[in-house]
Amino acid sequence: MARDPTNPLLLTPGPVSVSATTKAVMMVDRPSGDVEFLDDIAFARSYLVALIHGQDRYTAIPVPGSATYANEAAITTLVPPGGKVLIHSNGVYGDRLIEIASHLQVPHAVIRTAPFTPATPEPFADALMTDPAITHVMVVHCETSTGILNPLEPIADLCRRAGKGFLIDAVASFGAIGIDARTLHFDAVMLSSNKCMQGVPGVGWAVVRLGALGAAKGNSRSLTLDLWEQDQYLERTGLFRYTPPTQVVAAFAQACREHEAEGGAPGRLARYQRNWRRLIDGMRQMGFTTVVPDAFASPIVATFHNPDHKAFSFQALFEGMKRRGFIIFPGRLALENTFRIGCMGAVTEADIADAMEAVAETMQEMGVTELGRPAAS
Amino acid sequence: MARDPTNPLLLTPGPVSVSATTKAVMMVDRPSGDVEFLDDIAFARSYLVALIHGQDRYTAIPVPGSATYANEAAITTLVPPGGKVLIHSNGVYGDRLIEIASHLQVPHAVIRTAPFTPATPEPFADALMTDPAITHVMVVHCETSTGILNPLEPIADLCRRAGKGFLIDAVASFGAIGIDARTLHFDAVMLSSNKCMQGVPGVGWAVVRLGALGAAKGNSRSLTLDLWEQDQYLERTGLFRYTPPTQVVAAFAQACREHEAEGGAPGRLARYQRNWRRLIDGMRQMGFTTVVPDAFASPIVATFHNPDHKAFSFQALFEGMKRRGFIIFPGRLALENTFRIGCMGAVTEADIADAMEAVAETMQEMGVTELGRPAAS
Repeated sequence: MARDPTNPLLLTPGPVSVSATTKAVMMVDRPSGDVEFLDDIAFARSYLVALIHGQDRYTAIPVPGSATYANEAAITTLVPPGGKVLIHSNGVYGDRLIEIASHLQVPHAVIRTAPFTPATPEPFADALMTDPAITHVMVVHCETSTGILNPLEPIADLCRRAGKGFLIDAVASFGAIGIDARTLHFDAVMLSSNKCMQGVPGVGWAVVRLGALGAAKGNSRSLTLDLWEQDQYLERTGLFRYTPPTQVVAAFAQACREHEAEGGAPGRLARYQRNWRRLIDGMRQMGFTTVVPDAFASPIVATFHNPDHKAFSFQALFEGMKRRGFIIFPGRLALENTFRIGCMGAVTEADIADAMEAVAETMQEMGVTELGRPAAS
Repeated sequence: MARDPTNPLLLTPGPVSVSATTKAVMMVDRPSGDVEFLDDIAFARSYLVALIHGQDRYTAIPVPGSATYANEAAITTLVPPGGKVLIHSNGVYGDRLIEIASHLQVPHAVIRTAPFTPATPEPFADALMTDPAITHVMVVHCETSTGILNPLEPIADLCRRAGKGFLIDAVASFGAIGIDARTLHFDAVMLSSNKCMQGVPGVGWAVVRLGALGAAKGNSRSLTLDLWEQDQYLERTGLFRYTPPTQVVAAFAQACREHEAEGGAPGRLARYQRNWRRLIDGMRQMGFTTVVPDAFASPIVATFHNPDHKAFSFQALFEGMKRRGFIIFPGRLALENTFRIGCMGAVTEADIADAMEAVAETMQEMGVTELGRPAAS
């Protein structure tokens, strides 16, 4: 079933579609200091802490802007002068963390691993052994540029044993893939108001261990990105330090309520998994093949090879899908001849089924009729 | 006439109310790379440059977050290593610029002047004479904590003659009080998506002289706040570097269209002046007195003394106004026993008349019946 193309469904790595009820709260102008808005802020903060089971040990700090700001805020606030951060990258978002550290002139070391397999703990163990200057380790949980999921537990264990701070960029996974502070040792996890939390984009968040934050006073070389000061001010007044994006914050509180109503991260993950299964099966039936092996894939976003057929063009597929009310996404430059379809956001299995129909129609329109047999995975 | 208190009119220094049509564009989920959204970005950028008559000489750079981010971005990007910025303050927002420079560890000197009179050029001339290390001067145009308007021309002239960069925090004035790059010499002006531009809050902007920006490559110690890189990326791709707050940006483009339809800054200023006149006259008729002399006041926000009457309490006035659908604002801590009422945003003279009625009713409710004669101004 085609949708209204002026109000499309986003099947992308982000921004993702959010519910009409979440968007609806933005139709009101809110004073930033009023009691109802303060309740929204307090609820969102405590909800995020509860999501990681971090009650009394963690604090949730909003960073207006985007999740990239939250990652920068975590590095500038939590890595002290004289500190050094070991950054892992197997994709675009790992590379961005390296860029952040370079700009901040924060000493850093880099581990790069292959883009289509998850990180393994060995190079981390080696780096921590050979470079005692390292004080922190930072990884991307779900690398959105491929959809690959890097395992956190073995790296968290290494950090715990070695007494290093562990920082997690969970921007693409938080809210769907559980992160449990009772069993996982980490100093901070960063997330977006959008993505799996399904608020509108515009606020990043850092959920920070109180012990790590307490030691971070005065570290930040940025006023606006100072997590310590933002947290202090919130704790004292309930307010953001500077004018917040009131509509975005109110929408985020509503998104948290809807996240809770869906059964939290397990409920959301189950829906995304159904979306992903329907997507992968549907695309394979049409002869498309995936880039990341199923065993390493996350139900966040899937990457497909452009089919090797003379009539196929990604641009035509994109346009045909857009006319039918669905937005899909090109691959990253590093992955030539690929494209991505997301499973996140206010998207149901029925929506994915409709999208598969739209793909089939568009392929027929293009004259791509025979892609051969589905590839094995 | 009272309003719906669940959808109140904000008569505050910000966030301010925006039109229903501006908020309505947020009910759609937009892909961040799609042609319609790129058109919105391009239109907003060119509209801001046109507003200052800076075509071909200036570029408009969005900074997701808030206007404070834009001020920090301007300082970290435009003041080079070895540079020094002279910051003026006669209120809370001037003080915030000093805090930004302190955090960034950017060398700076400070001129403080009295809070209820505008800055005069003499101390700037003295500072530039005695401290040749100064490379930039930064001032707040409209100091929202009092509503006072600092004159730009004499300071811009000093900077031009001395070859110093001039940075303007016009967060509270931009869009209503004209800033004309044909006659005023400056390197950058910073603004909010909200305030007099009447978009929803969530994006700051810096409109920067190309010559100044071209010299600023590599200065920024922040990745997210690097104006040079954000501008390069926008020029090359039409896109923000990182996921933008798509709803906020689309609403800002709509707000620019409505600003244009109102006749640009002169049209908007005329409406705010009518609002301010109605507000000041109405409040004086009830016996309230203003803090800032009319000659120095801006039609952005007005500051009133709490009346010296035993039955008066600001909290009761605030609550009574809120029940009637109007939000007013306390004074800043530095100005004890004052409160503020804003004239900005999607607010008409008729709205202010309704608000005056609500003040009268609330005063009666409190039992404040006789405030004495209107004070002379």
